[in-house]
Amino acid sequence: MSETKKDTSIKFVQCVASCSIALNLFLALNLYLGSSGKVINNQLSWSRLAAEEAELAASMDCSGHGRAYLDGFPIDGKPVCECNLCYGGPDCSEFSPDCPANASGGDPLFLEQFWREHAADSGILVAGWHRMSYSFSDQTYISQQLDAHIRKLHNVVGNAVTDGKFLVFGAGSTQLLYAAVHALSLPPDNTSSSSSPAQVVASIPYYALYEMQTDFFDSRESNFQGDAAILINNSDVTTNIIEFVTSPNNPDGQLNKPLLKGSNVKTIYDRAYFWPHFTAIPNPPAHEDLTIFTISKLTGHAGSRFGWALIKDERVYERMTRYMQLNSMGVSRDTQLRALKLLKVVLDGGGREIFKFGYEKMKKRWERLTNTLSLSNRFSLQKVSSQDCAFFRTPREPTPAYAWVKCEREDDEDCFEVMKSANIIGRAGAVFRADNHYVRLSLIRGDDDFDILINNLHKLVSEEGGVSETM
Amino acid sequence: MSETKKDTSIKFVQCVASCSIALNLFLALNLYLGSSGKVINNQLSWSRLAAEEAELAASMDCSGHGRAYLDGFPIDGKPVCECNLCYGGPDCSEFSPDCPANASGGDPLFLEQFWREHAADSGILVAGWHRMSYSFSDQTYISQQLDAHIRKLHNVVGNAVTDGKFLVFGAGSTQLLYAAVHALSLPPDNTSSSSSPAQVVASIPYYALYEMQTDFFDSRESNFQGDAAILINNSDVTTNIIEFVTSPNNPDGQLNKPLLKGSNVKTIYDRAYFWPHFTAIPNPPAHEDLTIFTISKLTGHAGSRFGWALIKDERVYERMTRYMQLNSMGVSRDTQLRALKLLKVVLDGGGREIFKFGYEKMKKRWERLTNTLSLSNRFSLQKVSSQDCAFFRTPREPTPAYAWVKCEREDDEDCFEVMKSANIIGRAGAVFRADNHYVRLSLIRGDDDFDILINNLHKLVSEEGGVSETM
Repeated sequence: MSETKKDTSIKFVQCVASCSIALNLFLALNLYLGSSGKVINNQLSWSRLAAEEAELAASMDCSGHGRAYLDGFPIDGKPVCECNLCYGGPDCSEFSPDCPANASGGDPLFLEQFWREHAADSGILVAGWHRMSYSFSDQTYISQQLDAHIRKLHNVVGNAVTDGKFLVFGAGSTQLLYAAVHALSLPPDNTSSSSSPAQVVASIPYYALYEMQTDFFDSRESNFQGDAAILINNSDVTTNIIEFVTSPNNPDGQLNKPLLKGSNVKTIYDRAYFWPHFTAIPNPPAHEDLTIFTISKLTGHAGSRFGWALIKDERVYERMTRYMQLNSMGVSRDTQLRALKLLKVVLDGGGREIFKFGYEKMKKRWERLTNTLSLSNRFSLQKVSSQDCAFFRTPREPTPAYAWVKCEREDDEDCFEVMKSANIIGRAGAVFRADNHYVRLSLIRGDDDFDILINNLHKLVSEEGGVSETM
Repeated sequence: MSETKKDTSIKFVQCVASCSIALNLFLALNLYLGSSGKVINNQLSWSRLAAEEAELAASMDCSGHGRAYLDGFPIDGKPVCECNLCYGGPDCSEFSPDCPANASGGDPLFLEQFWREHAADSGILVAGWHRMSYSFSDQTYISQQLDAHIRKLHNVVGNAVTDGKFLVFGAGSTQLLYAAVHALSLPPDNTSSSSSPAQVVASIPYYALYEMQTDFFDSRESNFQGDAAILINNSDVTTNIIEFVTSPNNPDGQLNKPLLKGSNVKTIYDRAYFWPHFTAIPNPPAHEDLTIFTISKLTGHAGSRFGWALIKDERVYERMTRYMQLNSMGVSRDTQLRALKLLKVVLDGGGREIFKFGYEKMKKRWERLTNTLSLSNRFSLQKVSSQDCAFFRTPREPTPAYAWVKCEREDDEDCFEVMKSANIIGRAGAVFRADNHYVRLSLIRGDDDFDILINNLHKLVSEEGGVSETM
């Protein structure tokens, strides 16, 4: 080797060595800092396995027509795609063209995409020893952090006054609706059990659960009496009356108000849909004796079973708390942890992001629906008046969660069946104690369900005659 | 530079370069493989933030007398220690010597350490979009994976036959106990609502919730009648009777059997404590019409609110399923996901690990308790006969969850007050409809609570006179 070659060789090797050392430094730093760039004391230790499992499930390719969950039945140790309705195959890519459109249930999957876009912020890692106790450290069943976030949320949205109100948590609004009936139907002094049972009513069309619960649980303190209208001119002021006011209403989206008044009338406001996705938020905010909310239609997490009641009267609060204690010892602490995380994401940036997402999604769906039905004389939609929205600070068209469709032809006596014969599964008017000329179509399900609904509706409307086949 | 020096220098630099390249490879592989050694396609992405939050909470130093949770109130963005009773200060290191021993509630924190030791296996990461739907893809509210793991668990433990049984999930056993009363008290044909209400009974001493639920929910179909013994010679076979059989019994740990028989008698077995932590598991396994279990006393996750019923009769199953639907639309899917993960850990290695941990812990506690009380003539403990255990395959002493203490002196008419004056909070016999010469002391709480209990008991016993102060 010549002197010059040796020198070049030394320089080359020196260069490789220093580059390599620099790369070492970079790699070691990368290991130390973690991919987030934040300095953490250690790499993840015990939490890594759970995180890997969740990322593996999330990474399964389901063609945009399904998703794999952590708790599905695995095949060969891998999570398996659970496909949307009408899609099948291992990766959900196989579409069944004759599959009916499901527009029946209120599964709020229209928000699923939002949560996928907020994956990093919305995940929670639950340690094996997380909150094993029956109660929180203040001896209640209620997370005070979650309580505070709920109050903040109402303040930001402007849909309800929480100052001076008590909060009770429940498994969705479901558990709270009957807890409220139970609490309000007890005689004021808890003693005069000889008084007649409270009469529970709601305005037709109404959510079927109110009647089913009161009938099924069959308490000595209450009976379901049906339509609130029949009690308008009732002069009996000795019997307690409990009126459900669903606002916006399920099925028709109207901002209902109580029909009944009087010292013997108590009102339960069911405000499951009182969020900017679905309705203008009027000013001033709701300030009622007993109002029930749920995350099901707010964040879309129906499966988590979480709701809350805002209660003015301390005695009613105590009875509902007692109901929750004896019925289930409160709401799962795992669910409360998750609801807290979800509400934190909702509150990020003053709630504008999720409500903009939800409203835009619903607006587009309503446009497609009204365009489709505009070609029809056979079917009509409910009219909901537009209002100023205190949250968006603009007037806006209402975008209810459900279409309340009327079959206008006299001989279309069963609108559910008319839809069914067109391969659309709605929910019959009779389920809401309304005329069967009506059918409810859910507009808050996943995109696939909605697309199939619009397709099948378009076909149905086209068959009325003379209507173009293009959409 | 001489030739030789230059050659040595080249060799040295070459060596550094090759070592450095090797280190590069090692570091890069480490980044690529992750700390678990499993090949993963990428470093953690969206899940990292949740994992970091959980590890931060877990890393807070609470001196072994508390723990920080993800959903506590943070200070300066950091999770805060929630201290065990009688401990305080920012790191829970401050002990309050005069603080009473809490031996009242059944908080099953005796298993907390087990879950800390199984941190990696027992964590779950819940994605923001996890199971938002009301139902699973089979349209039920029940995870089939969890159903399968529960059956496997009973098979491994040998405490209940699941073949041919239906499963219903509930929010702990709490929700299921009354769902069962409701289902069993309906008349067989669902029509004859004129038949008299079912009489609900249990053997004294009994768990107070049975009576509280039936009274509070006040269904037209059932009344609580108190002690089962009063109906033993009852000749009325037209009225339905529902007998709660708690086995092992709360409060006294006895393997109770039904007192009542007949075509009009239905039995609800509450088997919350029927696990190898607390009792020998007799052979053959339980094979009953309606049996209720919960994870509260199995894994110690009382806060998760998860239980299940094994049901033989399809109609009873359907009624309880209907109850769960109308009461809360099933159990939170978040809770079901967590219960699944916990049961997977329980089942690892055939369940031997958690039951060994639980039994050893309870055995040591019983030894300390009996040693302490052996010095006393004033207080006695329940006798529970030892039995062969089909799970451990050895005879074993019973280690009930609660001490059922009797104040033997005639004038100690209120044993709860005797304990209270010694700075011990138990639960009075009257709560279980028993004589107030009895008091229940919980033995399944956290180590700190148990240590304080033994200390205060020792002081109390020492004051009987002539007893050594050493423990």
